[in-house]
Amino acid sequence: MAEILAMPRADQQALLRVEQADGVLRLILNRPPANALSIDLIAELQAELDRSAADSSVRVVVIAAQGKVFSGGHDLKEMTAHRNDADKGEAFFEQTFEACGKMMQTIVAHPRPVIAEVNGIATAAGCQLVATCDLAIASDKATFGVNGIDVGLFCTTPGVALARGMKPKHAMEMLFTGEMIDAGTAREFGLVNRVVPAEYLTQVVNKYAQVIVAKSPAAIAIGKRAFYQQAELGLADAYAHASRVMVDNMLGRDAQEGIAAFIEKRKPQWSEE
Amino acid sequence: MAEILAMPRADQQALLRVEQADGVLRLILNRPPANALSIDLIAELQAELDRSAADSSVRVVVIAAQGKVFSGGHDLKEMTAHRNDADKGEAFFEQTFEACGKMMQTIVAHPRPVIAEVNGIATAAGCQLVATCDLAIASDKATFGVNGIDVGLFCTTPGVALARGMKPKHAMEMLFTGEMIDAGTAREFGLVNRVVPAEYLTQVVNKYAQVIVAKSPAAIAIGKRAFYQQAELGLADAYAHASRVMVDNMLGRDAQEGIAAFIEKRKPQWSEE
Amino acid sequence: MAEILAMPRADQQALLRVEQADGVLRLILNRPPANALSIDLIAELQAELDRSAADSSVRVVVIAAQGKVFSGGHDLKEMTAHRNDADKGEAFFEQTFEACGKMMQTIVAHPRPVIAEVNGIATAAGCQLVATCDLAIASDKATFGVNGIDVGLFCTTPGVALARGMKPKHAMEMLFTGEMIDAGTAREFGLVNRVVPAEYLTQVVNKYAQVIVAKSPAAIAIGKRAFYQQAELGLADAYAHASRVMVDNMLGRDAQEGIAAFIEKRKPQWSEE
Repeated sequence: MAEILAMPRADQQALLRVEQADGVLRLILNRPPANALSIDLIAELQAELDRSAADSSVRVVVIAAQGKVFSGGHDLKEMTAHRNDADKGEAFFEQTFEACGKMMQTIVAHPRPVIAEVNGIATAAGCQLVATCDLAIASDKATFGVNGIDVGLFCTTPGVALARGMKPKHAMEMLFTGEMIDAGTAREFGLVNRVVPAEYLTQVVNKYAQVIVAKSPAAIAIGKRAFYQQAELGLADAYAHASRVMVDNMLGRDAQEGIAAFIEKRKPQWSEE
Repeated sequence: MAEILAMPRADQQALLRVEQADGVLRLILNRPPANALSIDLIAELQAELDRSAADSSVRVVVIAAQGKVFSGGHDLKEMTAHRNDADKGEAFFEQTFEACGKMMQTIVAHPRPVIAEVNGIATAAGCQLVATCDLAIASDKATFGVNGIDVGLFCTTPGVALARGMKPKHAMEMLFTGEMIDAGTAREFGLVNRVVPAEYLTQVVNKYAQVIVAKSPAAIAIGKRAFYQQAELGLADAYAHASRVMVDNMLGRDAQEGIAAFIEKRKPQWSEE
Repeated sequence: MAEILAMPRADQQALLRVEQADGVLRLILNRPPANALSIDLIAELQAELDRSAADSSVRVVVIAAQGKVFSGGHDLKEMTAHRNDADKGEAFFEQTFEACGKMMQTIVAHPRPVIAEVNGIATAAGCQLVATCDLAIASDKATFGVNGIDVGLFCTTPGVALARGMKPKHAMEMLFTGEMIDAGTAREFGLVNRVVPAEYLTQVVNKYAQVIVAKSPAAIAIGKRAFYQQAELGLADAYAHASRVMVDNMLGRDAQEGIAAFIEKRKPQWSEE
């Protein structure tokens, strides 16, 4: 195994454990048992996503979790406590959903691929987190659901991620019934890319990550950004945008090096970003 | 089985049989053998959808059919008769397609989940009806097709529903060839959620319906509307809209009750809408 | 087998072999071993697509390839040679990506169904070509990838076609890793409609093509154009557009003939366009 460049913080009780090795930044939700996405945990995720977006040593981000639950979604006890606020919690609820939505969009906008490593239950905003990551690898023990409807709170923000990642009838079945699906069904629905035995989960995630670490970081950043941009455009606008991006990519140093190396049958040397 | 609150109308020859039990409204296409969507049957569906949208006793709508055919789509004989009109049928065709498209959009806008219970053949606008419902459960005997192309009338309006529910290559194969697919293929394509033996069809539909009836009707209505709204927006706008909806949902009575019940480990009592 | 109406050009070294039989135009990429989409091959495809769009004898277009590779995408040697241009190749790269994007959009806008017959490896713009065709039938020996990332050139333009044809996590896995997928996975991802043994590939493609040749060419053209138009609109606008198209389709000669033939239980006689 690779040398661990950034050891876990001294404070083992940190809400988010941060590890880095071989270009892979691991953000480990560390609020067991439920790894609930409290306002503080969202803030820590946001801070690490922002920091790592500008850190050229980070080539892939993995979001994983401590314990048997990936994430149970928002912290309902924290939110309920704010019902005693003068505004009955409105400002805090706004803050929570805005911070969470911003963090999800930061994953999409992050210049590095973000992979969800799903070890167990992922519900509500926890399931949204999996749906939002560029890639997701799940243990065969993982289960998924958007069960806010069981407490009278429809998973509308998770639905934003589901609507863009799976067929509407599958999203609607999950959202209306609140029932859990197993990892195989999640793969079929398009929520995860691959399901592996639990004991190989981190190993397989690392394999995916290292495949990506070996690519040009400049090209990965250009391509990820352009992919999500063009996906929101009509076909003609999408092609106009994508063609311009391809020209710029071609004129950059790494495509020149990569194509030359391919023609000369040698290994390319990518520039650090 | 539940007591039937609203018995079938005295007129057993009604184009649409209407039954209600345990919060589930069953709209049964009753124009065998083909259950063709004539202008009158569309009008009856529209009237029942409009009426039930404002009826708090209705928690789920099921669209089912009498006989071995779910629906064969538009009534070609009725349409052909209007070719003798002074305008060669133009006004009647406009009326038909507008009424049908309005009815389909009323299903999407309906505050309750609408489930298609597909017992047999569903073609053209009949297949569109299945694709449009939020959920669809099919008998293993059911078959599906958009075969207007066989009579020189491309299924363009059914294509609106197909384009939003399945991959384009699957939609194109169905639309260009007009060939029928079996229930298993329909499940794979995303046209139906589940396929069950014919003798258990209504039982399974009722099981799904009762799972949903047990949820907060306010939260279901909020969530369904927001899901289809945000699905048409870009990611940033979708999150802005969804976050606002979540705040309002949290501030409502049912989320307060549901989350409190969850924390207190008791059963929630939803408000009637 | 059908009589070959248009024999291959005398010049067997043509970049694109053009054959026509029984209403099916076969455009055969003929630049083995890689069938790279050089600027000249793109131009020939564009010319044949433009010509055939106005040729009423063409009812289906098949894009196939000579040899063991369907297409390896852009011609990297040709592009690299232009790095010696005064502008470092910028004008040529622009010309290449614009010509390629235009050709892809011409397939979408073509009034006839375009079927990819994929005999072997399809990578980068070659994979984009498969994703862009209305339908695709692959040999069980075919493999697919968007591996520009391996040479530092993210497949951004292929991503336009992938984003519209498959789930985003599947597209992202292909784009980030550059790894090849087999034909069965391509079918699962929605990249191809069907996988058949290599020795039956052309036969199955012809079967699909003949099913479509038997339809009204007017209705096929109306429907294909409307499908891609409405798919880019919101639901209400999509229905407004589709309803108008249906009315016009109904008022045309072929729907009148087709529906009459159906009611009279006889074979319809379609008009030539």
